[in-house]
Order: sequence, then C-alpha cells, then structure tokens
Amino acid sequence: MTFRNFKMVDYVVYGRGAFNQLNEILAPQRKDDAPMIFFVDHYFENDAAFLARIPLLGKDKVVYIDVTHEPKTTYVDALRDDLKDEFGTISGIIGIGGGSVMDMTKAVSLMMTNPGSSADYQGWDLVKFPGVYKAGIPTISGTGAEVSRTTVLTGPVRKLGMNSDFTPFDQILLDPELCKTVPVNQRFYTAMDCFIHCVESLTGTYLNAFSKAYGEKAQDMCEEIFLHRSDWDEESDEKLMMASYAGGMSIAYSQVGVAHAVSYGLSYVLGTKHGIGNCIVFDKLEEFYPEGVAKFKEMVKLHNIEIPQGITKGLTDADFEKMIDVSLGLVPLWENALGKNWQEQMSRERLRKLYEQF
Amino acid sequence: MTFRNFKMVDYVVYGRGAFNQLNEILAPQRKDDAPMIFFVDHYFENDAAFLARIPLLGKDKVVYIDVTHEPKTTYVDALRDDLKDEFGTISGIIGIGGGSVMDMTKAVSLMMTNPGSSADYQGWDLVKFPGVYKAGIPTISGTGAEVSRTTVLTGPVRKLGMNSDFTPFDQILLDPELCKTVPVNQRFYTAMDCFIHCVESLTGTYLNAFSKAYGEKAQDMCEEIFLHRSDWDEESDEKLMMASYAGGMSIAYSQVGVAHAVSYGLSYVLGTKHGIGNCIVFDKLEEFYPEGVAKFKEMVKLHNIEIPQGITKGLTDADFEKMIDVSLGLVPLWENALGKNWQEQMSRERLRKLYEQF
Repeated sequence: MTFRNFKMVDYVVYGRGAFNQLNEILAPQRKDDAPMIFFVDHYFENDAAFLARIPLLGKDKVVYIDVTHEPKTTYVDALRDDLKDEFGTISGIIGIGGGSVMDMTKAVSLMMTNPGSSADYQGWDLVKFPGVYKAGIPTISGTGAEVSRTTVLTGPVRKLGMNSDFTPFDQILLDPELCKTVPVNQRFYTAMDCFIHCVESLTGTYLNAFSKAYGEKAQDMCEEIFLHRSDWDEESDEKLMMASYAGGMSIAYSQVGVAHAVSYGLSYVLGTKHGIGNCIVFDKLEEFYPEGVAKFKEMVKLHNIEIPQGITKGLTDADFEKMIDVSLGLVPLWENALGKNWQEQMSRERLRKLYEQF
Repeated sequence: MTFRNFKMVDYVVYGRGAFNQLNEILAPQRKDDAPMIFFVDHYFENDAAFLARIPLLGKDKVVYIDVTHEPKTTYVDALRDDLKDEFGTISGIIGIGGGSVMDMTKAVSLMMTNPGSSADYQGWDLVKFPGVYKAGIPTISGTGAEVSRTTVLTGPVRKLGMNSDFTPFDQILLDPELCKTVPVNQRFYTAMDCFIHCVESLTGTYLNAFSKAYGEKAQDMCEEIFLHRSDWDEESDEKLMMASYAGGMSIAYSQVGVAHAVSYGLSYVLGTKHGIGNCIVFDKLEEFYPEGVAKFKEMVKLHNIEIPQGITKGLTDADFEKMIDVSLGLVPLWENALGKNWQEQMSRERLRKLYEQF
C-alpha cells in the first residue's frame, strides 16, 4: 500500500487518577482463572503505597522489569518461557513503567502466541498471530511507546523492533498523576525523546498532513513546558503526557532522523539508554537541525540539565565501526532525514567524526 | 467510571489518493460471497468518474443516501430492512460522503445485528451487539463523525445518537483529494462545525488535557485556513481533514455547548442541516463566546459566506415551544457550557428570545 493503514490502540482512558479504574477495565478481559501479569518498572519495587494500588486477583503476579539496559530479545524470550512454565496461559500483561516496560510488555504479549525467539520477528510485519491482551500504563512521558506499532529490542544481530499491526496495545491508561515522582533529569531526557521525534519528523522528507498535525502539537506542548516556563506543576505532567501521545502518533506517517539513527549505534555498543542517548547526540547536531538544536540547548540551560560528555573517549576502532554499522543500517531514518541520496551525504568518515564528538 | 474509556477507530489510513487502496483494504473483510454495501452521498449520483473508482465485486451494491434531511431513525430502519430482505447477511457497509452518510453507515451497521428499531438505541450504551464491519470515507471535512462514538439521528421523540463502544468505525480512510469538488459555502458551514466544536469544548467546564490538546490543534488549523488566508489549495483540504479528525477526537473528554444545543432544536423543528444550523446560531452567540464569535464573523467576511437570516420568522408558539423542549433536553451540553447551575442562567424565556433572533 502507498499509505500505511495505521492500527490504532483500541481503548484510551486519560485522566488524573484514572489508575483507580484499572480493576474495572481489566475485569472483562480476564479469562477464567488465567492470571493477569503486571510488568512493573523495578523503580517501583520499594514503593509499597503504589504497589498496593495494583488490583491483584487470584493468581495474578507482579514481575519487576529490570530497565537498567535497553530491552533485549533474550530477556523477552526468558520472561515468556517463565510465564509459560508457571501458568501455561495467562489473561494478559499490563505494563506499568517507561518506554522499556512498554516495549517489554508488547513483545512478551506477542511471544506468548508466536513460536520461536523474539529475534525472529525483528523487522516489519513478521509477527503472525495476535498476542495475549496487553495494556500500557506509562509512568514517565516522552517515548510515545504507548501508541507505537513497534517494540525496540536489542537482538543478537540488530537493534530493531517487532513492527506489526498486532503490536499496538489493546488498552492504554494515561494517568498523569503516575509521573509525579520522576527524577528531574530523567523526566527531561525522556521528554526530549518526544521533542527530538518531532524535530526529526517535521523536518523530514516523509512528512504528510496527518503526522504534521500531531508533530506540531507535540512540539508546541514540549516548548510550552520546557521553553516558556522553568517551574513544574500538575499541568506540566498533564501536557507532557499528551505531548508523548501526540509525538508517538506523529510517527504514523513519518520517521525519526539523524539523532535516532546515531543514538541507536551508541546504545548498541555502549548500552546508553534511549532518552539520554538522544540528548547526547542531538546536542551536537546543529548542522542538521539548527533551529531544533538551538531550542534544545536553551531548554537544557533553563532546566539545569546535565548532558554527559566524552562518553566515546577511549573506544576502539572496532567499537566505532560497530556503531557506524548499526547506524547506517537504519536506512529509512537516514532517508527521511537526508533524502534518497543520503549515502552521498553521510559517509562512514563523517559519521565517525560525529561519534568522536560525544 | 470517572473517566471514559474511549474506544478508538481501529484502523486509520490518511493520504492524498488513499481511496485507490480501498479494494486492498476491504479484501480481508469480505466474508464468502456476502456483499459489501457502499452508502454513497446522493451528491455523487451523476459523477460517473468517481463512481467507477468504487471497487465493486460480486454482489456488492451502491446505495445512494439522501442527505436532504438530517438522518432519521425511520430511514435507518428501512435501509436495514431492505438489506436484510435482499441479502440476508452482508460483509460490511462503507460510507462515502459527509457527516450524514457517516452516521447512516454507523447506524445501519449496528442495526444489522441489533433487534428492533434504531430509535430504541438513541441514548448512551444501549447498543448490545457489535454491528457488521463498517468503514467511513469522508468527502467533506468538519463534522468529526469519522471518529465519534455516536450517530446523530432524529427519532420519533428525540434527536440523539446511538452512543456506544460499538459505534466507532472499524476503518476510516482519509483522502483529502475527495474533498476537491465540495461547494464553497457547504465547505465553510461544515468546517465551522469543527471550529464551533472547538470553541465550545475549549471554553467548557468538562475539558481535560486530552481534549484540550486536540481541540487547540483543530481550532489552530481552522484559523490557519480560514482566518489567515483567503485562497484555497490542496494543503487547505489536507489541513481541514486533519482539523475535522482532531476536532472529533477532542469531544472524547469534553462536550459541545450552547451553539449545538440551540441548533439541535432548530434542526428538529425546521429540518435545518447541522452545519448551516450551527453557523446561523453561533453568529448570534457573542454573549456566550465573545472571542470565538468575533473570529467566526471575520472568517465569514473574508470568505464571502452568506449566513441565512430570519429563518424563525412566522413560526408558531408551538414551534418555539418544541424547539425549546428539544434544546433544554440536552443537559450535558448546557452543563458543559454554563456549569452545574445552568438552569438558573438559561430560562425558557431567554432561549425563546434567542430563537427569535435567527
């Protein structure tokens, strides 16, 4: 098809305190005594007050997701095996956390019903069967993973998602109250994932009016929050959650660009997390995104954020080569950013020089 | 539930020329030899070139929808009976046209599987079974009916939709090219349905950040098109189609207000079509929406649009009483516009004076 027929998330509930409706929302999705599995960001492991709010019934189980590293296909497969061993079948998986937890939830849901390893499905439209019921409840805003049709996974040979019509959530629950304890730096890095999405998408060659409308609104909201004010309140959390949602939707008919392509290489070799990796990279991309980078630098300054420097110092040639391989493999991102003849513009040498700046 | 769990349209395809993908999109939805029924706005009845593009297969049938009047429950029931008599079962209904065709498509789809009359389901969450597959293809932008969970129907006792989680389309196809032949006045009236939605929703008491984000973007796009330029090009059609979509989404957690409440009464008694009815009413609502009405008047002037005057002249007291009854029955609209104590502000006398101005 010329234009992608975009599969939407089935149900969206948005509201401060909407988390209290979770039990009611899950009730019709429970199948006999098959449990609901709650994938919870390990950040909440000692937050007894929050954990007590998870509506556990019968054999339901909380599984803490270690998000120290970006999600790996081996981790997805291991969790799937554990759940199959322990329960046979489950009613569904509810992800509560950031982008990594969203992606782990989508991936394990799909792997409960699709044979083999999740690495077999890294790519476009390789998934064969719908997964088990899956719901996403973000506790930090920016990645857009709550509405995307992918799951970003690091596999044995590539960092690439399971892109398919079966990938989007059946349900998302957007409760800005859940974001109130996010540390300031982390909040900024993750929010900038959204801002950078928008800059890359709005300046890209793939753009159409659908993605433009969502991208402009998401970028406007990021700027309202981070550029036009230095304090933070409930309304900021509410707006940022919508910016994340709109930023995710804007990817439907567009693509990310240079920052994401370069940051994936960094993350593959150094394990740099996605949000902070994007910030490290975007900070040096004036030549590609002059206006966006200028705004970014202003936001960094206004919010006293520290962008790590010198992280590629001392890397070997082999490390750089690997980063360059991973990055240049992301053809649609480069094509969106630089056009059909992107290869003439982005040589291995130029990319190496860029990586050496971080 | 405190916050509505909003059922989304399942699939969205957006793009200039996307109509050419319709055959491919419908293929997996065809059930054996049960036909697809195309509900086509009677406006296209003599447009042979357009009709030839509808991908008819086997027993598929085109049914022209008469949109001279707002959709009636009797019309819905009659079409359902005809389809059942002729085919027994069908694969689905594809609506191609404006808001009335969208609503007829949703309503007849639901009535293929729910017993009785569509009038039995006018209200909230009364529909019991999913309808047959239904797709919406707007050929004019503004109503938001392509994404709403209602169908506005005039029944024996009320003008009210079949609001339910089964009501949203399974698929919408947004192809701005289909709007290129819309007459200028009609385009304006329907676009203003969106603009007025936004003003009512953004100034209303029900608003939250989800609806605000969509409403602001939709209103911005309407203003870009109608307030900041007087010419019209392809980009205008593209933006207006997205404004309609965003305006429809903004209703998820908000409500329309005074203009819609008053215009429903007008439409019930005089049969005034929704788009033009909203314009006739909104034009006199400075006291409720001073900023929005000022912008509206500017747009009317800039685009040389004629807003009919004097349409309630010569009506009987009984007519006015009926309009007032219908309007005051729309409690959530008044409550959204004027707050919990709306009845103290909007007496029958005040409303009568308003109706006499049109």
